[in-house]
Amino acid sequence: MKRQHLIAAIFAASMTAAVTSCNSSCDAGGAAASQKDAALANIMTRTSVRDYTDTPIPDATIDTLLRAGMAAPTAGNKQPWSFIVVKERATLDSLAKGNWRPAAKAQAAIVVCGDLTKGFPGEGKDYWVQDCSAATENILLAAHAVGLGAVWCGCYPITERVDMVKTTFAIPDSIMPLSVVMLGYPAAPQDPKDKYKTENIHYGKW
Amino acid sequence: MKRQHLIAAIFAASMTAAVTSCNSSCDAGGAAASQKDAALANIMTRTSVRDYTDTPIPDATIDTLLRAGMAAPTAGNKQPWSFIVVKERATLDSLAKGNWRPAAKAQAAIVVCGDLTKGFPGEGKDYWVQDCSAATENILLAAHAVGLGAVWCGCYPITERVDMVKTTFAIPDSIMPLSVVMLGYPAAPQDPKDKYKTENIHYGKW
Repeated sequence: MKRQHLIAAIFAASMTAAVTSCNSSCDAGGAAASQKDAALANIMTRTSVRDYTDTPIPDATIDTLLRAGMAAPTAGNKQPWSFIVVKERATLDSLAKGNWRPAAKAQAAIVVCGDLTKGFPGEGKDYWVQDCSAATENILLAAHAVGLGAVWCGCYPITERVDMVKTTFAIPDSIMPLSVVMLGYPAAPQDPKDKYKTENIHYGKW
Repeated sequence: MKRQHLIAAIFAASMTAAVTSCNSSCDAGGAAASQKDAALANIMTRTSVRDYTDTPIPDATIDTLLRAGMAAPTAGNKQPWSFIVVKERATLDSLAKGNWRPAAKAQAAIVVCGDLTKGFPGEGKDYWVQDCSAATENILLAAHAVGLGAVWCGCYPITERVDMVKTTFAIPDSIMPLSVVMLGYPAAPQDPKDKYKTENIHYGKW
């Protein structure tokens, strides 16, 4: 999508949401359209945010993000995930020195971990990666919805990052850190990337 | 005006439009809260839907889902994804006979594929799994937002499923099907599972 098309799409979604949520009759159809457009706009405008203000994040907001993470789909309902909430400045600073510069200004982070004891059997044993990725995306989207900025810092399967995170958080052998989501209120408005490409779409067959 | 400022201005303008068009019971804070709440509710209430009506899905709606998929985060901006849109009844029926019963009543499906030629180098070569999982989750959430039901049918890394999907869609060697999202309007209301567990949450360290 070209820039003007992206902006037009965002504008259309937000205008529809605005109009339908605020007309004088507030009918059920309008409210439904508003809910739909708001949810879609949240997906379309989420982007990686790596620079944050020093405003702290309320505990209730962190809990909302964790609830979003655990609302993710999970193969066979295994729920093979665990989360470490990080708010200690020294710990965030150590992550910044390790690999991840956004941690230097992040007000919190959530480490999304796979629990290898809860996974699928057989060839599906690595479905935890997909479940935890969906949980990570839910956390990013929830963060965007509440006005936070966030960035997905990839951990597994890069050995150096896994070792650093496991050491930092005293993570046992049966637990694998998939990602670290850095969080904070955005220092500046962010521009969502336009990644829509028609050449990525096939119809009927490849 | 920089692009991000333009987009911020569009949002500000649309929110202002919301304020000025609102009646007294719908102030600006209310509109913003409504948008946030709608986006969060969409995440929290999404659930797997496996039974569908025979109402067809408009092409524009499928395009919205594809846009949502490509709005996912992607490690190093590699965008290692491609999508196959399936609407042919015979193809859906063959998927139902193969592995996936929801395909029998699905009105469409989207096969989410990783493009192994576009991936990360070195130890991050399997980050395509995480990117495509986030794309799959975005498609599920967008489907829920527009009133569709959807279910994530896992494919990779289970050999039998990968082989079946690659054969069905004539998928080349360098492309790996991660998931097949079945789609249709829900035959009945669905209750979301409550998967929130405090024992999955750690603070500071494991």
